[in-house]
Amino acid sequence: METLKQRILEEGIVLSDEVLLLDTLLTHQVDPQLIADIGKQFARLFGGERVTKVLTVESSGIPAAYATAFELGVPLVFARRKRTLTAENDEVYCERVPSFTKGIVTDILVAKQLLSPNDRVLIIDDIIANGDAARGLVRIVRKSGAELAGFGVVVEKSFQSGAQSLRDMGVRCESLVQIRSLSDKTVQFR
Amino acid sequence: METLKQRILEEGIVLSDEVLLLDTLLTHQVDPQLIADIGKQFARLFGGERVTKVLTVESSGIPAAYATAFELGVPLVFARRKRTLTAENDEVYCERVPSFTKGIVTDILVAKQLLSPNDRVLIIDDIIANGDAARGLVRIVRKSGAELAGFGVVVEKSFQSGAQSLRDMGVRCESLVQIRSLSDKTVQFR
Repeated sequence: METLKQRILEEGIVLSDEVLLLDTLLTHQVDPQLIADIGKQFARLFGGERVTKVLTVESSGIPAAYATAFELGVPLVFARRKRTLTAENDEVYCERVPSFTKGIVTDILVAKQLLSPNDRVLIIDDIIANGDAARGLVRIVRKSGAELAGFGVVVEKSFQSGAQSLRDMGVRCESLVQIRSLSDKTVQFR
Repeated sequence: METLKQRILEEGIVLSDEVLLLDTLLTHQVDPQLIADIGKQFARLFGGERVTKVLTVESSGIPAAYATAFELGVPLVFARRKRTLTAENDEVYCERVPSFTKGIVTDILVAKQLLSPNDRVLIIDDIIANGDAARGLVRIVRKSGAELAGFGVVVEKSFQSGAQSLRDMGVRCESLVQIRSLSDKTVQFR
């Protein structure tokens, strides 16, 4: 995804050695054509995996996960963070995860009726840092009895441990762009 | 949108006279083909409005807003709820709004750089009840100096005041489905 690398170099703002702001591109505004290309790329990578559902967690992973689900022709489920009035029953899988960017702990929830042992689930997210949310989603998929087809992420910060921790768990993990360093206010790709 | 009405009748769960659960369809899981059709419908309705940006608020409006932005060929901005570490500067428009379904008050935020007086903004959301979030988005658009092209919503609960309050403000408001009552555990369309 050379276009994506170019856009990250042009629009990304390096806030610190660990935080890259992609607000104009991924986490607050998206370019639908770029997102559609991202969806096509994930669909190519995971096209042989007999995926039946795409899963993400609200919010900024939703556009890329939707575009992937559209290409694969399967439903998209987005895990909700914390309880709402409309999910007050206990028919949910729930995992408690810290959020790297938000600096808080949240519960992520998926209604039990939306995942079954017959499903093969592809998890899609926008950025992986320490991978807490991703591992929470993996635990939810495993609790449901569904098979995990893999994990696709738009931007992997490979100097943090998230993606490697998934690979160490035996999860097929594909990133479209890998960033190996944000030192000296500079984005360095792998 | 007869397909949408049919799906609401088949899958919607009436929790009370005011709350309709659409978790399998809109607010927790989406069918990408249905969402793509929704995007095409909004693009037809607002195609003459010279829209330059689509705006929604996280999370469940994002798929329909993305599909609309894709059809119109313009960026999608999703307002964030509450501050995150990565938006800790004060370069944001902020409006405090109560949430009908969550039973809490949240701040919705849009980075100032993402809206300008040259923009014509189409707001898209999944469901309108009392319209607090929608009016918050309208206030943000007005603060930015951008023009408001209109408001498109997938499901309008017309027995609540939200959509009418927007029309009373002179906002062009288009809903794909209008629900006039949820009494007796029954969905009645207008």
